[in-house]
Amino acid sequence: MAVYTDVAVDELSAFLGGYELGELLSYKGIAEGVENSNFLVHTGRGYFILTLYEKRVASNDLPFFLSLMAHLAARGINCPLPVLDRQGKALGELAGRPAAIINFLEGMWPRRPNATQCAEVGRALALMHVAGLDFAMTRPNTLSVAGWRRLFGAIEPRADAVQPGLKAFIAGEMEHLEKRWPTDLPTGIIHADLFPDNVFFLADRLSGLIDFYFACTDILAYDLAICINAWCFEPDHAFNVTKARALLAAYHRHRPLSRPEQDALPLLARGAAMRFLLTRLTDWLNVPAGALVKPKDPMEYVRKLRFHQSVSNLRDYGLDTANVVS
Amino acid sequence: MAVYTDVAVDELSAFLGGYELGELLSYKGIAEGVENSNFLVHTGRGYFILTLYEKRVASNDLPFFLSLMAHLAARGINCPLPVLDRQGKALGELAGRPAAIINFLEGMWPRRPNATQCAEVGRALALMHVAGLDFAMTRPNTLSVAGWRRLFGAIEPRADAVQPGLKAFIAGEMEHLEKRWPTDLPTGIIHADLFPDNVFFLADRLSGLIDFYFACTDILAYDLAICINAWCFEPDHAFNVTKARALLAAYHRHRPLSRPEQDALPLLARGAAMRFLLTRLTDWLNVPAGALVKPKDPMEYVRKLRFHQSVSNLRDYGLDTANVVS
Repeated sequence: MAVYTDVAVDELSAFLGGYELGELLSYKGIAEGVENSNFLVHTGRGYFILTLYEKRVASNDLPFFLSLMAHLAARGINCPLPVLDRQGKALGELAGRPAAIINFLEGMWPRRPNATQCAEVGRALALMHVAGLDFAMTRPNTLSVAGWRRLFGAIEPRADAVQPGLKAFIAGEMEHLEKRWPTDLPTGIIHADLFPDNVFFLADRLSGLIDFYFACTDILAYDLAICINAWCFEPDHAFNVTKARALLAAYHRHRPLSRPEQDALPLLARGAAMRFLLTRLTDWLNVPAGALVKPKDPMEYVRKLRFHQSVSNLRDYGLDTANVVS
Repeated sequence: MAVYTDVAVDELSAFLGGYELGELLSYKGIAEGVENSNFLVHTGRGYFILTLYEKRVASNDLPFFLSLMAHLAARGINCPLPVLDRQGKALGELAGRPAAIINFLEGMWPRRPNATQCAEVGRALALMHVAGLDFAMTRPNTLSVAGWRRLFGAIEPRADAVQPGLKAFIAGEMEHLEKRWPTDLPTGIIHADLFPDNVFFLADRLSGLIDFYFACTDILAYDLAICINAWCFEPDHAFNVTKARALLAAYHRHRPLSRPEQDALPLLARGAAMRFLLTRLTDWLNVPAGALVKPKDPMEYVRKLRFHQSVSNLRDYGLDTANVVS
């Protein structure tokens, strides 16, 4: 939950005066998102989301994120569309912070995703990757393989306090991944954080992808590997091959995976698990006093990583590409 | 900010199935209120507030609160109206908690109230008091004079750790108030917590009173005393006599204060300051680890209490009742 910055009525009214949105009727802080302050704003023109960007999001990256959303929305992807002010700008300033207004997307994120929803996610991810191919801006992924050693360095001395042997486990796995990380797979815009709370559904129909604030330029199949980790394990950490098959087959149907991409997927899935293991461990070991957000259990990703270590090919994820009908 | 209980899509859909509210389109946790979990719910019939009552609100009291809101709304008071389910009930159960749906009120609570808004609050409070006179249910005020000694007992040993001398100050003041607390003033339904964050405005026009979960049966003028404390001091704790005059005159115009009520107001204001001093001190001394809510400074109410000790009559609050035009 997150509202780090409160906004006074008169300053919000003044801010909205720069847009063609009509009169302010109400606004409420939303207890969602952990990086920024979000408000649901009702004006004479309808409901909108106001985001104040807190310091964890680099303000230099904001034009990338907002332009990307506008690009994808223009290509039919259901994602937030930044509202432009009277001067044509998507980014303003409110309460001393960069601020943007985006349109409101209907739908609910699934607390217990089913296989049909996993297929919808696979399809939407593929369509998003295709729609992003002609996006002109780029942004490096600081949380991929090249960034892991820095993350690990800051937490390495305390890793074994979380679980004995964790430090050696991470060090060994990291070396394995660094040596084999692919450099020749198709790259493009990836969402990089497409967890269930960033995907809205109306019943089983996907109605929106949100939270593009980790989006970057990286291996497209790595985004799929993140989704396998995020969508295809049960609360007891068991891998659900039915959900993985649904997700992968739907992706492959809308953006066919090349043979090298297929072969690399188990390794990419290990890497995706490593990325979330490292950031969760960092959060776990650095909980500020009076923290608003309880950190998520990093050990969940050790279990996922171990599972992917046991995978030899796509069939272990339930996908036989020979059987996917285009 | 508050969402203590998350709700899954299917359980919310099932819950809404008991109402005539159409299809669920979205819901978002709201970062407002500190006692309950609140969601803004969009259905085919519009926007509504869903409240899950957490354990700090006694479930025995919920029929009182919900009936009161319905009673006041029926008499033209702008307050949340509980939505009845198909069986005519306002109270249901969701996620193992008592739950209710109320209508959505437009408007924003003022972060920096002005004198015009204070007058609106005085008027609305008077009209609410009058509208509540024929409400059949009663609920004792556990946070008035009879409840203070119990509150104080639990924090007395640690009071001087907050500020040296605080324990003796409270003990002396409490004795003063207990000896003189009026027993013959008009009673009725009071809101008992009408702070700015519980009053919505559209520009300077009051559009709604919310959060009736401290409402009870008590001295009506005590409610006015709470409002003087809540609305008529500046952020630097200075008393703003212009705002107090506006609030009191508007109240008096819509529900004329009797002579005994007028005479008692400085004492009631000291009592109101005592009540919030004690509960804030309790919260301050009992911050749970990982608390979601930063407690408010209890010393603010010591300063307000000292101000009221210096008041001899209503003219010190800016009100000359001879000059109030009915």
